[in-house]
Amino acid sequence: MATTLKGQLLDRTTLDAMLRRRMFYTPSFEIYNGVSGLYDYGPPGCALQQGVIDVWRKHFVLEEDMLEVDCTVLTPYEVLKTSGHVDKFADSMCKDPKNGDIFRADHFIEEILELRLKADKQARGEKVVDQAADPKKKRKAKGPVGAFKLDDAVVQEYEAVLAKIDNYNTQELGELIQKYDLKNPVTGVQPLPPVDFNLMFSTSIGPSSNLPGFLRPETAQGQFLNFSKLLEFNQQQMPFASASIGRSYRNEISPRSGLLRVREFLMAEIEHFVDPDGGKKHPRFSQVKDIELVLLNKETQLSGKTDVKRVTIGQAVADGTVDNETLGYFLARIHLFLEKIGVDQTKIRFRQHMANEMAHYAADCWDAELLTSYGWIECVGCADRSAYDLSVHAKKTGASLIVRERRPEPIKVTEWEVDLDRKKFGPYFKKDGRAVEVALFATTQSQREELAKDLGLNGYIVIDVAGVDNGKVSVPRELLKIEQRTRTENVREYIPNVIEPSFGIGRILYALMEHCYWTRASDGGDEARGVLSFPPTVAPTKVIIVPLSNNDAFRPFCYELSQKLRKIGISNRIDDSSATIGKRYSRNDELGTPLGITIDFQTVQDKTVTLRDRDSTRQVRAGEDDIIAAIRSVVDGNKTWQDVESELPAFVGQETEVAVR
Amino acid sequence: MATTLKGQLLDRTTLDAMLRRRMFYTPSFEIYNGVSGLYDYGPPGCALQQGVIDVWRKHFVLEEDMLEVDCTVLTPYEVLKTSGHVDKFADSMCKDPKNGDIFRADHFIEEILELRLKADKQARGEKVVDQAADPKKKRKAKGPVGAFKLDDAVVQEYEAVLAKIDNYNTQELGELIQKYDLKNPVTGVQPLPPVDFNLMFSTSIGPSSNLPGFLRPETAQGQFLNFSKLLEFNQQQMPFASASIGRSYRNEISPRSGLLRVREFLMAEIEHFVDPDGGKKHPRFSQVKDIELVLLNKETQLSGKTDVKRVTIGQAVADGTVDNETLGYFLARIHLFLEKIGVDQTKIRFRQHMANEMAHYAADCWDAELLTSYGWIECVGCADRSAYDLSVHAKKTGASLIVRERRPEPIKVTEWEVDLDRKKFGPYFKKDGRAVEVALFATTQSQREELAKDLGLNGYIVIDVAGVDNGKVSVPRELLKIEQRTRTENVREYIPNVIEPSFGIGRILYALMEHCYWTRASDGGDEARGVLSFPPTVAPTKVIIVPLSNNDAFRPFCYELSQKLRKIGISNRIDDSSATIGKRYSRNDELGTPLGITIDFQTVQDKTVTLRDRDSTRQVRAGEDDIIAAIRSVVDGNKTWQDVESELPAFVGQETEVAVR
Repeated sequence: MATTLKGQLLDRTTLDAMLRRRMFYTPSFEIYNGVSGLYDYGPPGCALQQGVIDVWRKHFVLEEDMLEVDCTVLTPYEVLKTSGHVDKFADSMCKDPKNGDIFRADHFIEEILELRLKADKQARGEKVVDQAADPKKKRKAKGPVGAFKLDDAVVQEYEAVLAKIDNYNTQELGELIQKYDLKNPVTGVQPLPPVDFNLMFSTSIGPSSNLPGFLRPETAQGQFLNFSKLLEFNQQQMPFASASIGRSYRNEISPRSGLLRVREFLMAEIEHFVDPDGGKKHPRFSQVKDIELVLLNKETQLSGKTDVKRVTIGQAVADGTVDNETLGYFLARIHLFLEKIGVDQTKIRFRQHMANEMAHYAADCWDAELLTSYGWIECVGCADRSAYDLSVHAKKTGASLIVRERRPEPIKVTEWEVDLDRKKFGPYFKKDGRAVEVALFATTQSQREELAKDLGLNGYIVIDVAGVDNGKVSVPRELLKIEQRTRTENVREYIPNVIEPSFGIGRILYALMEHCYWTRASDGGDEARGVLSFPPTVAPTKVIIVPLSNNDAFRPFCYELSQKLRKIGISNRIDDSSATIGKRYSRNDELGTPLGITIDFQTVQDKTVTLRDRDSTRQVRAGEDDIIAAIRSVVDGNKTWQDVESELPAFVGQETEVAVR
Repeated sequence: MATTLKGQLLDRTTLDAMLRRRMFYTPSFEIYNGVSGLYDYGPPGCALQQGVIDVWRKHFVLEEDMLEVDCTVLTPYEVLKTSGHVDKFADSMCKDPKNGDIFRADHFIEEILELRLKADKQARGEKVVDQAADPKKKRKAKGPVGAFKLDDAVVQEYEAVLAKIDNYNTQELGELIQKYDLKNPVTGVQPLPPVDFNLMFSTSIGPSSNLPGFLRPETAQGQFLNFSKLLEFNQQQMPFASASIGRSYRNEISPRSGLLRVREFLMAEIEHFVDPDGGKKHPRFSQVKDIELVLLNKETQLSGKTDVKRVTIGQAVADGTVDNETLGYFLARIHLFLEKIGVDQTKIRFRQHMANEMAHYAADCWDAELLTSYGWIECVGCADRSAYDLSVHAKKTGASLIVRERRPEPIKVTEWEVDLDRKKFGPYFKKDGRAVEVALFATTQSQREELAKDLGLNGYIVIDVAGVDNGKVSVPRELLKIEQRTRTENVREYIPNVIEPSFGIGRILYALMEHCYWTRASDGGDEARGVLSFPPTVAPTKVIIVPLSNNDAFRPFCYELSQKLRKIGISNRIDDSSATIGKRYSRNDELGTPLGITIDFQTVQDKTVTLRDRDSTRQVRAGEDDIIAAIRSVVDGNKTWQDVESELPAFVGQETEVAVR
């Protein structure tokens, strides 16, 4: 069951109302009745997003010397055809034949099975929790539920299906709908068999509309297509990573779940290019090996369970749970990033994808999932895309997407080689020459060995050349040589593998808002008031400046402080509205502002101000410069509020909470 | 004629090759042969962009307490229909009937007229400069030019047309093509009459494809639609500004000019909402009034000239050249921003739009244009959109996009009011009641005055109601009253006007690269080497760390320094490649890295390092901590290199330039 930061039961309706009231987010085009799956961020949401991106950039790009690129969203058809997205980037969709309702098939099955399990629980007299508590539950079951007991075996079967719901393909989902006779509760009718629906938005580029294109579904392809230039920029050194932060688009079938399932979203993706030979070691793995992660592997899920284990990443790589060091390194780095921005450590797990669940390009994949009131939500994917993408693009375009590396020791390569006597070969075959040549050079080593024998024995060879003569062409000895030779190779060529940590920033933001939320009891007996305890590094506004009243004497002090903070890059706002100090602080607790400065009559006398901590509501009082230094340390993450309290005198004179009454 | 930072003639081909080689930018999907008008930013371009955005956010959003929002790119049809973009956001396009070539009509006319003027100059024996030098010239005329003398009057006429080329509509452009018999040089054929081509990319949203939409052509609409929520967030205080940084899309007809005319681009837009009454004063105008701007007003252009005048913005507002303080305030702030990021002060002008040139929503508009080798390029627009957008959206949706403000003094309002006796009215008109009611309440004040008279005289009134009876409906006295009454109004309601500074980040970046570029003569007699003298605040990488050689002893020093710089957020890279120090510094001069640290044998002994200035190539030597402090000051913009040199000992021992040989 989802809880607040302080362990209270999380009331999503209240939180959501607060997030909208404070304009963290808002449905896009709301005055036009909105469009499902599209949301805007208001000022605090936008600033929180920026704070998270700043941390991400420092934690990954700057810290690890990644090559950040910024590629276009518009992508021509050909690129996404090659990458497999045109054919395979789809969800299963089914339609109610009676009222035309459209469902995502897996979500439909989940919803109906969960409704039945809920009815069963009621029949068994168990308490039914209305908030999504089941780890695999994606959204709340809806509609009224009558008690209806199921056989124990059926309950088990349903639960096993739900545990591996992500592993069914479209046909299998259709079979489940038939097998369990799942009906749309609204019409009482079974939907039509599911079909694949491609999730990409399409458009056409150029005035003559002759270049079909899509909005990219991921930022990755732009990075792959630039691989050779990036390798060159990195002065040919491997391994290296590129990174990109930008919007991607998925035309979700039936988006609900608020910010968690949207059609336009910000991604931050890393493509780490690594030599596939040598076990994909990572040079800094030792720095993270003792970090403990909570893992849910694919075997556990396939057996219908969701038990996790907590192990160090060193252990998980050693025992093969996580395939290799580089993958393990990034899982640990992802964990550290999530910790840094304020995600609740008890609400993170890494779940391995099951075989059918994986994207078409992935060889292995782990998701960082965060626990929210909607259940466990995939917020970061970490996939091993192997050499898939570079290979298909190289094959399609003829571009050389490879690494050429000088070998420490040259190696000897012994191979059968074909040499043509071109002076005779051309005139002999005339217009067919090219086709025969291509066929000869396309032969494998073992074929060449055979051909060399034939040549020695017969004085000619016969090879298959489609479209020439009867498809069999005879080549006499004087036109070619086939010999086994040994040469020295100084350079090794390989296609790198790619490890891809991919962050859904919007989902992370939503989970973060739930994880940082709690409610504070009010002295005055009013409703409990919401607080968002974001870490100062990511908080939308760092400091709120509140004059005690709208007395003109306070104004210059507010303005001067605000300017000084701005000069050192610390975002702040002055709230000189007529509300009580308590109300103004309450508003900023809801906005997640970690620090507050009060300007009062003593300020006018001695230039001291009070500094208030959002979480404890405790205050210190000191001169402007000391307060600014303390703010800077807290915002930079170098000091905690406890440090500040131990260094500056406490202030208890004018208690904020008292002022609320 | 475009010049480098040092006044050298700018060779665009060389600069462009350098920018691509260093991966500032690269055509998107190049291994798929690219798509015109789409470019990716590589690592230095991406970092430069980020640096410019950071400055923008500090200069505008943070400094002026703007409300930053992040809205979706996907926009439903209805919104852009209302805003006028579906009907009016178009360019004139014409087609060559022979080979199907498609042109933007105004660009086509410019190109052909410029070719003729060039031929005329040759015939007159004048020197023809191949680089675009004419202020209004958008791209280089191409193709070989034979000498061909024109009449003096014709030359004047062509020049006048070019000076106001942006002021012709589609029909007028067609007339120019006919009048001057302009032909496609490739086919020798005159193109077909131009037609309007809408520049928006369309797509459909949702699985059933029933919601048509567009990729937004500007970020503004999202801000307008959220106006009421933003005003509420700002605690009902006016004036205020929202801001947004994000991609927009325009399906350019025939994009050339590299980064200057692209189909997907980053915009940073501000919507400043202001009370239309009281002359649109700005509270901080006095802070900027003495800033001098170079202005080119619309009257000058309409007279076929391009003469500018340099005046203070205070003067320009006072004499009415610039309409109001708020518009003037933002022109000055734009100027300061461009100055801050390193734009050449001698290559900025503000050009006023002519009437026909203005976007459909604009009441007045000034562009900040930057001089490049492509001519003067619009990089920032600053439009007064009046109440246009808020009005049309409010009218369409019924949403209340207004400001309600308590009047300092209540006012008396005397108006004719209509009261219905609803108990009798409904039963009397039955199903027509609603239509008659609407018609009654839609009457104007003067109509009501007449109706009141009729009612008194006749005991009934007759009004027009479409679709009821014969369109004339008689309403007897007992159903209604029409009286003149006086009420007290405490609240004033108004629709704010909008001043919109709108920045094309990509164009600014390109102009900045040209403005910061120069070439340094090489001691060794090689080709001159390129330097990009970006200000440290926006430079892609702040520090390059180069060990003297790849001796293992240097490695820990490089690593430690790099980590220390990173900890304080200063981006740096280690270049331990085997090239000479001089070559490594040259590479980083091309990347615009302002500072370089050399680690040498003395470092190993006493932990001192040298710090090199990109622009002068001069060096100082000091202990690590002093060097780091110096770097921080320079990057934060608090100190110049001159300050650093005056504080730390010069280093001349191992001269970088010597090492190049």
